[in-house]
Amino acid sequence: MTESMGIDIGGTKMLGVVVDAANPAVVLRQARIPTPAGTGALFDGIEQLVAELTPAIDAPVGMGIPGLVDGNDVFRAGANLPGVVGVDFRFELGPRLGRTIAADNDATCAAVAEFRVGAGVGFTEGILLTIGTGIGAGLLVDGKIAHGANGFAGEPGHMLVDPRGPQCPCGRRGCWERYASGSGLGRMGRDAAVAGRLSAAVAAAGHVEAVRGEHVVAAARAGDDEAGDVLDEFAWWMAAGIANLIDLLDPEVVILGGGVMESADVLLDRVRVSLPEQVIASAYRPTVPVVVATMGEHAGAIGAALLALDAVA
Amino acid sequence: MTESMGIDIGGTKMLGVVVDAANPAVVLRQARIPTPAGTGALFDGIEQLVAELTPAIDAPVGMGIPGLVDGNDVFRAGANLPGVVGVDFRFELGPRLGRTIAADNDATCAAVAEFRVGAGVGFTEGILLTIGTGIGAGLLVDGKIAHGANGFAGEPGHMLVDPRGPQCPCGRRGCWERYASGSGLGRMGRDAAVAGRLSAAVAAAGHVEAVRGEHVVAAARAGDDEAGDVLDEFAWWMAAGIANLIDLLDPEVVILGGGVMESADVLLDRVRVSLPEQVIASAYRPTVPVVVATMGEHAGAIGAALLALDAVA
Repeated sequence: MTESMGIDIGGTKMLGVVVDAANPAVVLRQARIPTPAGTGALFDGIEQLVAELTPAIDAPVGMGIPGLVDGNDVFRAGANLPGVVGVDFRFELGPRLGRTIAADNDATCAAVAEFRVGAGVGFTEGILLTIGTGIGAGLLVDGKIAHGANGFAGEPGHMLVDPRGPQCPCGRRGCWERYASGSGLGRMGRDAAVAGRLSAAVAAAGHVEAVRGEHVVAAARAGDDEAGDVLDEFAWWMAAGIANLIDLLDPEVVILGGGVMESADVLLDRVRVSLPEQVIASAYRPTVPVVVATMGEHAGAIGAALLALDAVA
Repeated sequence: MTESMGIDIGGTKMLGVVVDAANPAVVLRQARIPTPAGTGALFDGIEQLVAELTPAIDAPVGMGIPGLVDGNDVFRAGANLPGVVGVDFRFELGPRLGRTIAADNDATCAAVAEFRVGAGVGFTEGILLTIGTGIGAGLLVDGKIAHGANGFAGEPGHMLVDPRGPQCPCGRRGCWERYASGSGLGRMGRDAAVAGRLSAAVAAAGHVEAVRGEHVVAAARAGDDEAGDVLDEFAWWMAAGIANLIDLLDPEVVILGGGVMESADVLLDRVRVSLPEQVIASAYRPTVPVVVATMGEHAGAIGAALLALDAVA
């Protein structure tokens, strides 16, 4: 048995897993702890997770990190880890743990997992999107995960899709993740509620400003037409950005993961209906399948463990 | 000497070149004829170009075609070649010419030329954009031109960038090439003229509706501030789409070709100024150089000749 450990470092919590290289889709052991603030406390937390999960003495540790990670495993910047910037995980954390370390962007890690052992097995051109509070991505080009010049490839969340759109924390307006993320769905729900619609979702939320995406989804599941309209709008925006990516990369498959996909039952068909109208020359190419990721919440951590194995190979 | 011939098939004219494999950046012989309408006449025209340019008896012939060309050299569809659709260049034209044929998208051919023997030599991650009436692209990922699943990769011209934008012939609204192409510049010029600005360009054009991009550029070169404002707006839109591509692909270089780049003297600095504000996390990555293509109008034909050499290699 060749063990590897992976940690998906999120803005609020870290998920650690231990897998066996021979069957990495199966999690042998896992643990979750809050993500501490600041580099020192973050390293302490990682050390604690490693101690708790007892990976084999020679097991490497991989990390999926929300933000820009360069090709040398250095975390350059990211909005979700306050107080952590410019951290060289391989050389600062590796000696402390006495293990080989790998680090990459969290969505890239999820893409590694999905394309090697999940929904993307067998494809050579594909896109994985993680649709949560924001939007992350991993791109499979010619059978390999594309990293770009600096390791930063795969950030479609900040594609401009509407110059008069809502302000984005990145400083620009109308970024795709202001529409097609969980935050975007919540905003569309509140906008509809403020406009006097979505009474079922408002009743469930308590008041107009408390409406979130899950209230819209629950109301739509219960058959509420106004909630269905908001989901149609949301799915149109998801499809709009996915179409941009298909025009550019011509993938064989688009895999959707992330928390928003817990609502795939009411979202996926809507996206599939909207997509062909938005892809260039749809009539002249095969329909691109849009499928749900299969690794669930473990995708990032398992992908990190796989990258750690690559680092010792 | 190993000769190869390349033909850049445009909507109005075809440019044929013959090059030597040992130094393909140098055009040995060239000729240009109007692009005939319909598949039969197009084949006749190609045969005529081959006869005129007398490539060596064993020289293959490559073609750059405006539209979607699949991985089997079949032209699937494109708006600029009326009456030509679903044409298998390799198997329909090859036997007739008694030569090996290669066919690919025209911007992909231009990218092959620029990255192998032009402005992109030495890079492994890059984007070539051809900015003309529309926008084409070729993507260099991990040292190779990305083709995607069907050979259709590299169509950023129809990225949605404004859902309330102008109608596009593709059927959608607010595609990037409605803004950042030569057509887009002309429209911005006319919009400014209709609004009572751009008097210098209007005087040169004769009347408001006759204003085209070249009038705006000429007025800006002569120091007209209002024309400069229109170019600022145009460059903002160019930068907006380029930023989308940088966020997604993290290239080392962006190469700009196509007819609009004849105005690089008044455009390029404006694009370079606007770009860092629009790229995600600019502060944490090297500035991506934006440079002008060096193969000029020969890029597509030379790239096609290079792909033809690949086909016989």
